[in-house]
Amino acid sequence: MERIEGVAVGRCASSPNMQPLTMNYRQNGTQRSWNFMKTQDSVALLLFNTTRRSLVLVKQFRPAVYMSELDRLFPGFLASLDTRPRAPPGVLPGSAGVIHELCGGIVDQPGLSLAEVACKEAWEECGYLLSPAELLLVASYKGGVGLTGSSQTLFYAEVTDAQKGGPGGGQAEEGELIEVVHLPLGEAQVFSCNPNIPKTLGVIFGITWFFQNVGPGLGVH
Amino acid sequence: MERIEGVAVGRCASSPNMQPLTMNYRQNGTQRSWNFMKTQDSVALLLFNTTRRSLVLVKQFRPAVYMSELDRLFPGFLASLDTRPRAPPGVLPGSAGVIHELCGGIVDQPGLSLAEVACKEAWEECGYLLSPAELLLVASYKGGVGLTGSSQTLFYAEVTDAQKGGPGGGQAEEGELIEVVHLPLGEAQVFSCNPNIPKTLGVIFGITWFFQNVGPGLGVH
Repeated sequence: MERIEGVAVGRCASSPNMQPLTMNYRQNGTQRSWNFMKTQDSVALLLFNTTRRSLVLVKQFRPAVYMSELDRLFPGFLASLDTRPRAPPGVLPGSAGVIHELCGGIVDQPGLSLAEVACKEAWEECGYLLSPAELLLVASYKGGVGLTGSSQTLFYAEVTDAQKGGPGGGQAEEGELIEVVHLPLGEAQVFSCNPNIPKTLGVIFGITWFFQNVGPGLGVH
Repeated sequence: MERIEGVAVGRCASSPNMQPLTMNYRQNGTQRSWNFMKTQDSVALLLFNTTRRSLVLVKQFRPAVYMSELDRLFPGFLASLDTRPRAPPGVLPGSAGVIHELCGGIVDQPGLSLAEVACKEAWEECGYLLSPAELLLVASYKGGVGLTGSSQTLFYAEVTDAQKGGPGGGQAEEGELIEVVHLPLGEAQVFSCNPNIPKTLGVIFGITWFFQNVGPGLGVH
């Protein structure tokens, strides 16, 4: 997953799914304007494998995270770019862009409920067969409030090894390359607090929520 | 805060701080490309006012959240826009874009530590005087992993009414219009779970973390 080579970056000439917009408005009589970007809503799913007593996360290389680290290492490089792709001034290992996340994805298929999208992601990314009735709604919230304002809905579900019917790993035809990570309960809280393991707030919140809401019934805390 | 009028939206012709970029790379030998956007890292700060026994949040109108709701109400409108700003096909009240967040902001001043930025935001947004030594580091994580990959660092601090030396409310000259919200401890968990009150995951996690880590010492849970 982490062998990243031939990196070159340039300004994005045109992208239908990445179009900066400007909102002009008056707020309490004062004229204002704000740039934003329309993105799609998403779902996330915290999975607990009761056979293995592990939380199930996914791990993948995220170009945007890698680029954020690159920008920290070589300040000014990204700001200097034009449309012609250029190689960065030095090498950054691919591991800098690998991040732990909850299973999940964007809501882009009309007609599917949020729970159905979460089940689809559980299958594609982790190989577990789940039905919407097995999902518990944990929370819904707004993400990227400065830039995108999209909504994310978080579910929780328990699975067993017997429900694992597919390989997971994401949709290869869409370029997804996802590793399923089993996090033993006894290691989860240390993992959550370790700043050297890049992760999303969804992972940290999911672990905290689990130990507050599910853990006590299992005798773990 | 919520009187929003004269809304018009168009494609953003050019914005130095909102430049879509494309990363080309090979992952394990396969050529790929990904569009992303460089954004700045940020800090967030969960404040507990021990005089009032309240969690201190901020509430503001967020254009990107408003637009996300508008897109849900009038599908296709945002996708149809060109550079000439156009009014949406109907009215959406300003309250649809008002959201509860943790105090915080982007890291845009060279030379300030993350804790110093958090203290600056506590003063500007909430009017509390804090020094970095009073802050507890709670977590750091990656946000917007598909699009931006920026980092956020979350702190916790306890304040008293005696530390309130300023009005808060944000920097008027930068167009900030922020309302400070005191959330009594007894209402915090119901607030956190209420899907009809738009909020960030930072708020939900902050409340959950507080009741797990601080609440027991106060005799609340």
